[in-house]
Amino acid sequence: MKGETVKLGDLLLLASPEGKEFLVAADERPFGTHMGNLNLRDIIGAPWGTTVTTHIGKELYVLKPSLNDLIRHIRRQTQIIFPKDVGFILVKLNIGPGGSVIECGTGSGGLTLALAWLVGPDGMVVSYERDEAFSQLARQNLQRVGLESRVTFKVRDARGGFDERGMDAVFLDLRSPWEYLEQAYQALAGGRTLGILVPTTNQVSRVLGSLEDAGFVYPEVCEILLRYYKPNAERLRPQDRMVAHTGYLIFARKALKGGSNG
Amino acid sequence: MKGETVKLGDLLLLASPEGKEFLVAADERPFGTHMGNLNLRDIIGAPWGTTVTTHIGKELYVLKPSLNDLIRHIRRQTQIIFPKDVGFILVKLNIGPGGSVIECGTGSGGLTLALAWLVGPDGMVVSYERDEAFSQLARQNLQRVGLESRVTFKVRDARGGFDERGMDAVFLDLRSPWEYLEQAYQALAGGRTLGILVPTTNQVSRVLGSLEDAGFVYPEVCEILLRYYKPNAERLRPQDRMVAHTGYLIFARKALKGGSNG
Amino acid sequence: MKGETVKLGDLLLLASPEGKEFLVAADERPFGTHMGNLNLRDIIGAPWGTTVTTHIGKELYVLKPSLNDLIRHIRRQTQIIFPKDVGFILVKLNIGPGGSVIECGTGSGGLTLALAWLVGPDGMVVSYERDEAFSQLARQNLQRVGLESRVTFKVRDARGGFDERGMDAVFLDLRSPWEYLEQAYQALAGGRTLGILVPTTNQVSRVLGSLEDAGFVYPEVCEILLRYYKPNAERLRPQDRMVAHTGYLIFARKALKGGSNG
Amino acid sequence: MKGETVKLGDLLLLASPEGKEFLVAADERPFGTHMGNLNLRDIIGAPWGTTVTTHIGKELYVLKPSLNDLIRHIRRQTQIIFPKDVGFILVKLNIGPGGSVIECGTGSGGLTLALAWLVGPDGMVVSYERDEAFSQLARQNLQRVGLESRVTFKVRDARGGFDERGMDAVFLDLRSPWEYLEQAYQALAGGRTLGILVPTTNQVSRVLGSLEDAGFVYPEVCEILLRYYKPNAERLRPQDRMVAHTGYLIFARKALKGGSNG
Repeated sequence: MKGETVKLGDLLLLASPEGKEFLVAADERPFGTHMGNLNLRDIIGAPWGTTVTTHIGKELYVLKPSLNDLIRHIRRQTQIIFPKDVGFILVKLNIGPGGSVIECGTGSGGLTLALAWLVGPDGMVVSYERDEAFSQLARQNLQRVGLESRVTFKVRDARGGFDERGMDAVFLDLRSPWEYLEQAYQALAGGRTLGILVPTTNQVSRVLGSLEDAGFVYPEVCEILLRYYKPNAERLRPQDRMVAHTGYLIFARKALKGGSNG
Repeated sequence: MKGETVKLGDLLLLASPEGKEFLVAADERPFGTHMGNLNLRDIIGAPWGTTVTTHIGKELYVLKPSLNDLIRHIRRQTQIIFPKDVGFILVKLNIGPGGSVIECGTGSGGLTLALAWLVGPDGMVVSYERDEAFSQLARQNLQRVGLESRVTFKVRDARGGFDERGMDAVFLDLRSPWEYLEQAYQALAGGRTLGILVPTTNQVSRVLGSLEDAGFVYPEVCEILLRYYKPNAERLRPQDRMVAHTGYLIFARKALKGGSNG
Repeated sequence: MKGETVKLGDLLLLASPEGKEFLVAADERPFGTHMGNLNLRDIIGAPWGTTVTTHIGKELYVLKPSLNDLIRHIRRQTQIIFPKDVGFILVKLNIGPGGSVIECGTGSGGLTLALAWLVGPDGMVVSYERDEAFSQLARQNLQRVGLESRVTFKVRDARGGFDERGMDAVFLDLRSPWEYLEQAYQALAGGRTLGILVPTTNQVSRVLGSLEDAGFVYPEVCEILLRYYKPNAERLRPQDRMVAHTGYLIFARKALKGGSNG
Repeated sequence: MKGETVKLGDLLLLASPEGKEFLVAADERPFGTHMGNLNLRDIIGAPWGTTVTTHIGKELYVLKPSLNDLIRHIRRQTQIIFPKDVGFILVKLNIGPGGSVIECGTGSGGLTLALAWLVGPDGMVVSYERDEAFSQLARQNLQRVGLESRVTFKVRDARGGFDERGMDAVFLDLRSPWEYLEQAYQALAGGRTLGILVPTTNQVSRVLGSLEDAGFVYPEVCEILLRYYKPNAERLRPQDRMVAHTGYLIFARKALKGGSNG
């Protein structure tokens, strides 16, 4: 049966019962953690879901990493987009197999990874970033999960415009998105959705004040709160603390300018 | 350029500036709303994003429906899963192109639609439902969006077990998920994720009390809150009211029973 | 024992098991509701907590109104402050027996009522409002609960300054609080707390930008969310919908200007 | 003018611009912090709101502690009730000047302090606690703020019943409140409100299942979320993290048993 055993090069999520996690590839050899050492090569051929034991007797589950795991364990130099936001962005921007999407503000590549995973082998992701170091890091993060070939990385400020036209979606994750709205408009196919993430209310106001002039309609602003519970059947209650804020999400649609039809 | 004009049969989201929405196919003809009538055939060949005008002068944008729109406009006889939850489920269950997933509790087919869209033409969705009427409705909803062929609908209670093995993900959306945990375990590939949605804390406790015996590890319980803002640049503030609860999400991983490896 | 039976003039909260509520005084006579008629006079002398029956057989509990009830049932022409916010304001502004407080923006008198109740017979509430009609309404609302004598209502715009000095607390509930900060500073005793309620983020930013110049330090901004659950032991879950926003609360302390001591 | 200068024995909140806080009395002498030393005696006679400087040049505001400050700075051996919950409890339980209230589960005395402050010199607080050490600590905490004389501390388990009758309010803050419902009923005046705080959903269910049998009607369950913002005018946004849970609040009213009146 497909995918039932670990193969050379597979990414593994090694997770202890207490919640320690390590994302590693099955081709690296001795793997040392504060929970003891493992010989990763020995896991090749083992069934997914098996339990391995370190040299000091600590147990680790061998789990198949989900998109959620891959995003959380990305190597980062920037704030990354949280999975709670990624999920909603995907649903709002209509990202799916065969789709085409521009991301502006590659950062460490967390959203890039999600987009690449979801557009599939027939899709197309173009990711703009003006900081060469970030773009490099994102490329490495995508390489690690084997999705690099689905992404075109462009190292430049897109204020001068995107090269693409007729795209299914555009997402802006940078400090002054109001400077990129007309460029996004040019790149998007009609009736499709633009998405934006910004951390402050001042930025939200500034984007809202510019959307209509740039040709966007149907603006929406929202935020997503994710609250975890302690998974205890007899003493069920929320965790004591939670992430209170990652960013505000803004969505709008490209309407054609210049008059109605019909 | 692909997808730039409306074709016969395309689904349209007709949206008024004030937020009224209609999801229709471009092959239906006279379309009557309380905002006036339209001849949908006239829209065929028009560019996406255009604005059409009803016979009484009301304007409607011709938008490309997103997955979010399709889920919200599904014909329903049951409570549907909200897009905020769908997005997070996709990210946690690792649903993507070529994937295989079982859903138990088809309901009106809202999540089914999302799963079918995301696994793409090479993926596989199996959806169990014991109520024939619901399954029929879901099938129609999938037909309408052209994704029916990606789903195998099974009309029966899955308490006796699922037919599939080695699946990438299983999702349970029914009243007593604790009765289906061992069946889900059998169907899942090792190390993969089970997802569950239940509305009450009592159900969460009951599921948590049964997960470990069924072979699942790494349990997580959470809820997602989505808060919309009034999109007014000068007077930015949250909407007055919001959806306070849809359900609790539970996730756990299939660990292999019986001893460690390594 | 004190307060064990209803006396002439007492305010009653008549509440049906299904949650219908009526706030009435025990001196009014025939009281008609869509649940039938009652003779309120008959309740005089009855014990608090008793159940009365309307002429069509509907039962109503005779409850002692709490501050929460009094605020919710105020006669209003404006948005009132919600009890969730009132409670936190009281704790932050240090409102208690014998205290002195200025409120600017009387509105319908919801907060005025709470302040008057809490400062007690030895305290002092001064409430400014430039709209005569609102001030009148608030006065009537306070009369109804017998707390009018604790409040000095002033009908004028306080932009020209408050008459009082050395107050324990000042609360601003009006559209442009940034125009009243210096006046609040003059009226407050040193080291005490100013409170402000505004609905939009733009107003919050504007207040924050003016606090320091006006002599206030230690600014805090917060919002309070109150989420109700369905009180069902076997099916415990949050209500489907909730109030998502009433306003942002801002607090700051009066520091003395011009140099340190010690 | 009253309260304008610091007197011997006054409690001070010394607060640095960066948010460090110290709650001290003005009769202690050399006061050492990691921000340097102060001679507290020198502050006596200074105006509230002044700024003092430590021997290494750090500035501290001399603020009048609010109820919020007193609760947060209590000496504790137990989880204390948060000010956000205290405020709402006060409003729901109708705590005010001259009132009478039983608290069961004194803990460190955080709520006791709030109750004593609000009932004023003519009110009455009775606080039950079976752990002698906690009761002692609470007594010390009340002494420190000069409110000890308003509280009767009783060191015993109240399962055998409360001594008081006709009380305005009862609040239960202990592990198994369902064992104290009938006792609370006996102690409360008719039509008044019982309040309960519990951390888990299992406890909420258990309380809800017992309220009606004990004679309580009109049950309500809620939780309060408090979200702070970074007080930056140009970059307004919520804090990154927040307290996600303190406890669930349950309220119900005492209805008289045995038949209706009227």
